[in-house]
Amino acid sequence: MIEKLISEIHKKEAPIVVGLDPNLAFIPSFIKKAAIEENGETLEAAAGAVLSFNKAIVDAVYDLIPAVKPQIAMYEQFGIPGLIAYKETVDYCKSKGLFVIADVKRGDIGSTSESYAIAHLGQIKVGKKPLPVFDADFATVNPYLGTDGVKPFVDVCKANDKGIFVLVKTSNPSSGEFQDQKIGKDTLYEKVGDKVEEWGEGLRHGQYSDVGAVVGATYPEMGAELRKRMPHTFILVPGYGAQGGKGKDLKGFFDKNGDGAIVNSSRGIIAAYTKQGYEKYGEEHFADASRAAVLDMKYDLRDAL
Amino acid sequence: MIEKLISEIHKKEAPIVVGLDPNLAFIPSFIKKAAIEENGETLEAAAGAVLSFNKAIVDAVYDLIPAVKPQIAMYEQFGIPGLIAYKETVDYCKSKGLFVIADVKRGDIGSTSESYAIAHLGQIKVGKKPLPVFDADFATVNPYLGTDGVKPFVDVCKANDKGIFVLVKTSNPSSGEFQDQKIGKDTLYEKVGDKVEEWGEGLRHGQYSDVGAVVGATYPEMGAELRKRMPHTFILVPGYGAQGGKGKDLKGFFDKNGDGAIVNSSRGIIAAYTKQGYEKYGEEHFADASRAAVLDMKYDLRDAL
Repeated sequence: MIEKLISEIHKKEAPIVVGLDPNLAFIPSFIKKAAIEENGETLEAAAGAVLSFNKAIVDAVYDLIPAVKPQIAMYEQFGIPGLIAYKETVDYCKSKGLFVIADVKRGDIGSTSESYAIAHLGQIKVGKKPLPVFDADFATVNPYLGTDGVKPFVDVCKANDKGIFVLVKTSNPSSGEFQDQKIGKDTLYEKVGDKVEEWGEGLRHGQYSDVGAVVGATYPEMGAELRKRMPHTFILVPGYGAQGGKGKDLKGFFDKNGDGAIVNSSRGIIAAYTKQGYEKYGEEHFADASRAAVLDMKYDLRDAL
Repeated sequence: MIEKLISEIHKKEAPIVVGLDPNLAFIPSFIKKAAIEENGETLEAAAGAVLSFNKAIVDAVYDLIPAVKPQIAMYEQFGIPGLIAYKETVDYCKSKGLFVIADVKRGDIGSTSESYAIAHLGQIKVGKKPLPVFDADFATVNPYLGTDGVKPFVDVCKANDKGIFVLVKTSNPSSGEFQDQKIGKDTLYEKVGDKVEEWGEGLRHGQYSDVGAVVGATYPEMGAELRKRMPHTFILVPGYGAQGGKGKDLKGFFDKNGDGAIVNSSRGIIAAYTKQGYEKYGEEHFADASRAAVLDMKYDLRDAL
């Protein structure tokens, strides 16, 4: 799967993922108003607003980017209607030719991780019939439970030609609290990074494997070190834009060919119309603002690489 | 919230949680057959079978136990119909007076963790109206992202009188891979345990706080050490039964009054009819087998404490 994503990154000349993390706080009021008029102040209304918002953004940017990353928490908070909107978002993005990275950060004991892997990447057998479930292309995975919590995802990737990104060094301010702790001469996140290389051994396609890593744009030096330490691990880089990461800091996440990483921006793109420099679009043209923000990000990364 | 759970444990004289982790492999064939006859080989059929199975188990055991712990992965694997069955399971258990521990193991950067906390324990505002979502009583939380991934759960607990259990030392075989690594003189899981005590400081009700810990029954010595190290932290103990934990090993998880922990059994109870000693019930009387297994677990723990 990873070689297909890389090929699409080359085609679009954009190592960019747009994070579809809709929040009612920045969905334009005309969309919310219409949804509440139709369904009242309900979870269905919220989910309807989210889906309309996502579709408008995707329509405006799908030709520029290889992939999207819906953050399932933003849908789960609206319960069943929200998760229906999540599934419809995944399907809509796939119909537009986009790769979908399910940002689910799941991870549990072996038998339970297997169910999560099936839910997001695999197929479940009911009677004699294997059925796809949420069916994204990639999922993010939490490593705290060790190999037997990650292995079922690796197996499902192998059987279904899918990929995962395992949390190594996350973008948030307190990520160092445990991840940066020294274990002998290495940090915890380096130990996890070494395991990620190992878990991906049987799933390499060219330089990179279907088992990638998440390393935050907010920690560029660590990103550069991890790029060297995990030569077969493709890196998903969240934290660009709203969380503080900038293109010029990200060169180290990429290999000498300019491959090896894909950078995510969520609010910086989907809420661009609320940000400095894009006010002229106004609420009504929020999707055009998102397109402009993707193009700006593309140039920022191109200049940096 | 924790003081209510403790009071219910005293009333039922059973520090026992039944894990509602249904798997098509052990749901009786007459239930699956009826569901497939009604809905074909679909996700809806699987979800229908799960819900019928759960209700029969709950009807057979609710008077004996204070709490249940549905593992959401087992529902997520059946997509939207599965998650509807999850929500109906939560609601059904609450209607029977049971506390519901949502085993979701969520955890993300701050703003995203807030959405997960709202989804499982809080209320989401749509327009001016706050709406409950999955609305369990407790949820399990993954600590890999540090304080700012856990804090939003703590805040939602405070605002809504709910509780969490943070993964400290998990029950699976590879849990030591990262959790047991030495950081200075402590292990990672001890460092996490210390943080759990700290996160719960503002939420103490009597001896214990609403911020609990998950420590596996399969590591009884570590459980006994953590009991001393985290004096205000109530412990959720998975891994009894099918994973290998036994009552006599669990004394150390409890305090001198016999409080401080609640032990989970999932397959050992809900799939009891497939286990040695309960074959006489047969598939048809699977729920009676589950009741017998709860009673056996109750006596096993009573003898041990």
